Amino acid sequence: MFEDRSKKRTELGELGEFGLIDHLTKDIIYKNATTLKGVGDDAAVIHTKLTTLVSTDLLVEGVHFDLSYTPLKHLGYKAAVVNFSDIVAMNGTPTQLVVGIAVSNRYSVEALEELYDGIKLACEKYKVDLVGGDTTSSTSGLLISMTIIGEAATEDIVYRNGAKEGNLLCVSGNLGAAYMGLLLLEREKEVYKANPAAQPELEGYDYILQRQLKPEARLDIIQLLKENNIKPTSMIDISDGLASEILHICKQSDKGCSLYEEKIPIDATTVSLAEEFKMIPTVAALSGGEDYEVLFTIEQSDFETVKKLADIQIIGHITDKNSGANLITSSGAVIPLNAQGWDALKEKE
Amino acid sequence: MFEDRSKKRTELGELGEFGLIDHLTKDIIYKNATTLKGVGDDAAVIHTKLTTLVSTDLLVEGVHFDLSYTPLKHLGYKAAVVNFSDIVAMNGTPTQLVVGIAVSNRYSVEALEELYDGIKLACEKYKVDLVGGDTTSSTSGLLISMTIIGEAATEDIVYRNGAKEGNLLCVSGNLGAAYMGLLLLEREKEVYKANPAAQPELEGYDYILQRQLKPEARLDIIQLLKENNIKPTSMIDISDGLASEILHICKQSDKGCSLYEEKIPIDATTVSLAEEFKMIPTVAALSGGEDYEVLFTIEQSDFETVKKLADIQIIGHITDKNSGANLITSSGAVIPLNAQGWDALKEKE
Repeated sequence: MFEDRSKKRTELGELGEFGLIDHLTKDIIYKNATTLKGVGDDAAVIHTKLTTLVSTDLLVEGVHFDLSYTPLKHLGYKAAVVNFSDIVAMNGTPTQLVVGIAVSNRYSVEALEELYDGIKLACEKYKVDLVGGDTTSSTSGLLISMTIIGEAATEDIVYRNGAKEGNLLCVSGNLGAAYMGLLLLEREKEVYKANPAAQPELEGYDYILQRQLKPEARLDIIQLLKENNIKPTSMIDISDGLASEILHICKQSDKGCSLYEEKIPIDATTVSLAEEFKMIPTVAALSGGEDYEVLFTIEQSDFETVKKLADIQIIGHITDKNSGANLITSSGAVIPLNAQGWDALKEKE
Repeated sequence: MFEDRSKKRTELGELGEFGLIDHLTKDIIYKNATTLKGVGDDAAVIHTKLTTLVSTDLLVEGVHFDLSYTPLKHLGYKAAVVNFSDIVAMNGTPTQLVVGIAVSNRYSVEALEELYDGIKLACEKYKVDLVGGDTTSSTSGLLISMTIIGEAATEDIVYRNGAKEGNLLCVSGNLGAAYMGLLLLEREKEVYKANPAAQPELEGYDYILQRQLKPEARLDIIQLLKENNIKPTSMIDISDGLASEILHICKQSDKGCSLYEEKIPIDATTVSLAEEFKMIPTVAALSGGEDYEVLFTIEQSDFETVKKLADIQIIGHITDKNSGANLITSSGAVIPLNAQGWDALKEKE
C-alpha cells in the first residue's frame, strides 16, 4: 500500500551471490574495537575480555511481517532492534550482528538495499557492527535470520531465573501500543483492499504506528539501572506480551507473583484506540506483545531509588510459588495469569 | 524415496513454539567449559579467554537440499558440519551452535526430531554445544539457519588474504566425490519418478553417497598441521568447488597461482562414476563443490614436513598477480581458472 512503483529495478541475478553481499556491505565501517574482522572471510573474528552473549531470531514473510504495510527499511530496522533487545534483556550490550537473508527473485537489488539501510541504521544507532552474512535464494518470499553477539561482565549478566519472593516487578516504558499499531495497520489494509482509492486514516496515530513499525531496544534502561547501582534479580524483554513474559520469569524462578492491573503503564493513545476497537486496554498490554520493553525484578531495598527513575514503573511483586501468578484487577478481583491473558479477562466480564 | 510412512505423526501445533524448543533440546548436556548458559533464556552465555569466531549459513528446501533423497537426520548432520567447517577454515575450533528452523505444518514433531538427531550427532562428534534456537512456522517448506561460534588464539587465526608468492597450495582429502554423489541421487530420483516400483541402483557407491549426504569438517587436518608446527598462510574450505575457492584466496591475497591438474586428488570411484556420466573428473573437482575439504597455502620451508602428512596433497603454488590464476592441464596447456571451471575445460576439448 505504500510502495513506490517508480523506482529503478535491478534483478538479483545481475550481481550474483558474492557480488550481492559485497554490494550490500561495501560501505560498512567497524566501530567496535572488539571487531577484528567482519564480512569477507569464512567467519567474523571478535575479541572481547568480557563474556559473550548470543541470540538468534528468524523472521518469515507472511508469518512475522506483512510487506503490504511494512516498508522494507522499517523491517530491517525492527528485525535488528528486536534481536538487540535479547542482549539487553540479559543486561548486556549488543556488539556484532550477522544477518542471513533468503529471498525470492521477485525482490530487486534495490529492495534489499532498503532492507539493509534499515539494518545499518539500527546498527549505527546501537553501535553494533554488521560483521557477516549469508544471502541465498528462496522459493517463496523473504526470510531474515539474525544472530546478535553481545557482551557483559559475567557478574553483570541477569537471567530469567533469579526472581526472589518479595522482589518488586518492574517494567519500562508503556505497553500495548505496538499491538494497537498492528490492529490499525490491519484495519487500513482491509479498507484498502475493499477500495484501493481510499486513503489510509493514520493521522494522529504516529506514536502508535512507530511503536509497531520502529520499536527500540531499551539499552538506555539497563544503562540507567547500572548508573544507579541497581542490578535486577531477573529480566526478560517483552516480545510476546506482559502475561507471557511474567510467566516465564515465575516458571524459571520457581515463584508466583501479584501483578496490579492499575499499575500497568498504558499510553493515552493506546487507551483511546483500544476503546475505538472495543477492546480492554489491559488486554493489549497483557497479550499484545512486540513492545520490546524490559520486564525485571529488583530487591525491595532498591525501591526508593527505582521509584525516582523516569520511564520505569513498579507493577507488582514476586510471591511464593504456591500463590500462583495472579492479576489483581482494578476492581480487586484476583485472576490467574495465563499466556493468553484475554481468556482470563473475558471471565471477568 | 527413502521415506518410512509407517511412523507416528504428532502435529507441531500440539506442542506450541516453546514446548517444541523444550522438547527438541531437553536432553542436551553441555560439554564445553566455555558454555555458561545454553537454551532457555534470552541469549546463550559463553566465556572464552580466546578470540571468538562467528559464521552463519542459511539452507533452504528446494534450493540447498532435496528431501526426496536426503534423510532428515543426514540433513541435520550436514547442515551443522558445513557450518563447523567455516570455523575450521579460520584455523579455529567450533564450540557452540545456535539453530533457527522455519517449518511448514506439513512437517511433524517426529520429522523435526529426526532433523535434530542429526544436528545433535554432529555436535557430539565435534564437541560442540547446541546453545540456542528459534523455531517458527513458514509458509512453505523447511529453512534452516545455523550460526556457529568458535574459538582460536588470535595469533593462530588464518585468513583468506595471507597467501604470498612462492607459497605452496595444498588441499586435504579428495575432491569431486560429493558432486558425483549428487548427480547419482538426481539420476535415481528421475528413474524413481518414471517408475516408482524401480529400486535405486546405489550399490558400490557408498563412499560417493556419504561424501554428498554426510560430509565432515576437517578439524583433524588443522589439528595435524598444528601438531607439526605448521601455520597456513591462508585458508578456506571448499564449499563451491576448488576453482572458486582458489580464486577467493588469489583475489583476497592479491596474487596469482599455478594449479596442476594431475596433482588434484580425485578418488577412483569418483573417476569411474564421472566416466559413466561422460564427464571429465577434473570438472567435478574444480566446480562440483560441497567437498568441505580445506584448501590452504604454506611457506615453502614447510614442504618437507607437509609432504609426509597423510591426506594432504600439494597441488600448485602461488604466483604474482599479473600471471593470473591458471590451471596447468595434464597435457601442459595453461588455462585461466574461473569460478565455473567447466567453461574453461570445455574450450580444451
